[in-house]
Amino acid sequence: MTGLQNYTQYIEEHLQQLFPKKKPVLLYEPLRYFLTIGGKRMRPIATLLGAEVFGVNREEVIHAALAIEVFHNFSLIHDDIMDAAPLRRGRETVHTKWNDNVAILGGDVMLIESYHQLLLQGGDITAYLDLFNRTAVEVCEGQQLDMDFEQESVVSEEEYLEMIRLKTSVLLGCAFEFGAIAAGVSEEDRKHIYDFGMFTGIAFQIQDDILDVYGDPEKFGKQVGGDILKDKKTLLYLSALSKANVEQRETFERLKAEIDPIKKVTETRALFTTMGIRSYCEEKRNAYYAKAVNAVQALNVPEEKKNILFTLGDYLLNREV
Amino acid sequence: MTGLQNYTQYIEEHLQQLFPKKKPVLLYEPLRYFLTIGGKRMRPIATLLGAEVFGVNREEVIHAALAIEVFHNFSLIHDDIMDAAPLRRGRETVHTKWNDNVAILGGDVMLIESYHQLLLQGGDITAYLDLFNRTAVEVCEGQQLDMDFEQESVVSEEEYLEMIRLKTSVLLGCAFEFGAIAAGVSEEDRKHIYDFGMFTGIAFQIQDDILDVYGDPEKFGKQVGGDILKDKKTLLYLSALSKANVEQRETFERLKAEIDPIKKVTETRALFTTMGIRSYCEEKRNAYYAKAVNAVQALNVPEEKKNILFTLGDYLLNREV
Repeated sequence: MTGLQNYTQYIEEHLQQLFPKKKPVLLYEPLRYFLTIGGKRMRPIATLLGAEVFGVNREEVIHAALAIEVFHNFSLIHDDIMDAAPLRRGRETVHTKWNDNVAILGGDVMLIESYHQLLLQGGDITAYLDLFNRTAVEVCEGQQLDMDFEQESVVSEEEYLEMIRLKTSVLLGCAFEFGAIAAGVSEEDRKHIYDFGMFTGIAFQIQDDILDVYGDPEKFGKQVGGDILKDKKTLLYLSALSKANVEQRETFERLKAEIDPIKKVTETRALFTTMGIRSYCEEKRNAYYAKAVNAVQALNVPEEKKNILFTLGDYLLNREV
Repeated sequence: MTGLQNYTQYIEEHLQQLFPKKKPVLLYEPLRYFLTIGGKRMRPIATLLGAEVFGVNREEVIHAALAIEVFHNFSLIHDDIMDAAPLRRGRETVHTKWNDNVAILGGDVMLIESYHQLLLQGGDITAYLDLFNRTAVEVCEGQQLDMDFEQESVVSEEEYLEMIRLKTSVLLGCAFEFGAIAAGVSEEDRKHIYDFGMFTGIAFQIQDDILDVYGDPEKFGKQVGGDILKDKKTLLYLSALSKANVEQRETFERLKAEIDPIKKVTETRALFTTMGIRSYCEEKRNAYYAKAVNAVQALNVPEEKKNILFTLGDYLLNREV
């Protein structure tokens, strides 16, 4: 997206100033490391753009944006322990490069730092704090549901969508609403821009599930078919399971036990395609994005401001990586 | 201490209302469990008493008190994972009764809840948040130093005292200062009551180290000599090591390798006594408590209000359990 690099750069410059070199080294060094391994910085950019929509400069909302990004990194550090993930963005996770204790305590400091950034933001601190606390708890609930689902044999699509709403989407809603809080707009406009972020987040996550199966291996950052190999309960998996006839269910079960990875990915993908799972999920994604678009239409701002959000939404949804 | 039960009861009633039964069960049930296994509730009582000193009713500062206690419980849940502690107050720790993931995520929600309580407290939210953020980071730094010390062969008394100041004492200072913030008193009085809490906290922790070696087995809640058996670097251990002559150092090293637990505890205790370590540590403890008393004397409140703090301090320092 044209001009987005400018925002990313602005965020990076501020992130680099966090956790300056001080003691104890084992507490702060891992945090500086983790902040340098990158990420799209989609969430803090959402806060900057959310402010811009209501005519507020990014300088006036930078600390709220940092609070969001620091919180997101806290949740990644802790999630990586819980998921026993060795890598993140192709680099070692904190608990792998150091150990679990370093990752637990470092994550805690990261979470506290997000509240420190909110304090630095100033302004309507009560509004920020109220929204942030609610969102933070929801993100944790989403992570717990995600872990619960791994143990459960039956998960409905509805339950899955509620899990991704909590785990990944409410934070994007919160990020946009932070921009609206900085601008001091009405409760209605706060709600609309929150909804835009949340619904876009759900659509984005569904797109993620689709790309994992149907992405272009040349462009997709991760291994295509990774979710299939892990038997991960994505929207594609769950909708396939619920729509399968007896024969298709047998094929699906057989493929779950398949040990040849290439065969497993290729044939599961073929099964999904035959069953119309790709288009079913694309429709779901589009339906959520339509809700996001409706929320923007309801905003009490000039059309050219709405276009900022549409451009970002289109960028996020049409990505191939 | 007369009347303290009344305060404890008041805190317990409020703690019981936190984390009502809702889903996900694995996220909230462990938190309710951990809050029921008790504790002296010394820190939230400090907030109630801190308010009382400045003429503010406990009802007006209850949420700040809960924020402190909930934060303390968050830190215990995470510390127990890091220390691989199977028991706390004679009951299973969260990571033992459930697993590490439950303890990590549950601790996170506990930390977020402490900020939720600060929001419910209202009033000078910026003042609460500023002090709380600083204190919370210090507690994490203290835990990191404590873990670092286990790996280090040489730790000075000064480093040890700084570690316990951070890990255990600043939160007591913060707890008292919350009472002062609720009362809207001067920066000076805020500083004095903070210092009272912090210095009392250090004295309390030194007393803990002493009791672990010299406590009455009939009254002391934990196994007497537990620190000796674990070769824990307490103030007694570190001061003995720094004051030992060649012969005493040899005895100390021999006792560290001793496998008979009764012999190890009895003879190490005898060595400490011969070397005057007990009285040395008692003097250190008294010196910190004297600083705490000076801080109270400097408070701009009537004498009978100061007595509230002296009575609490005496109670904490003269305990045998």
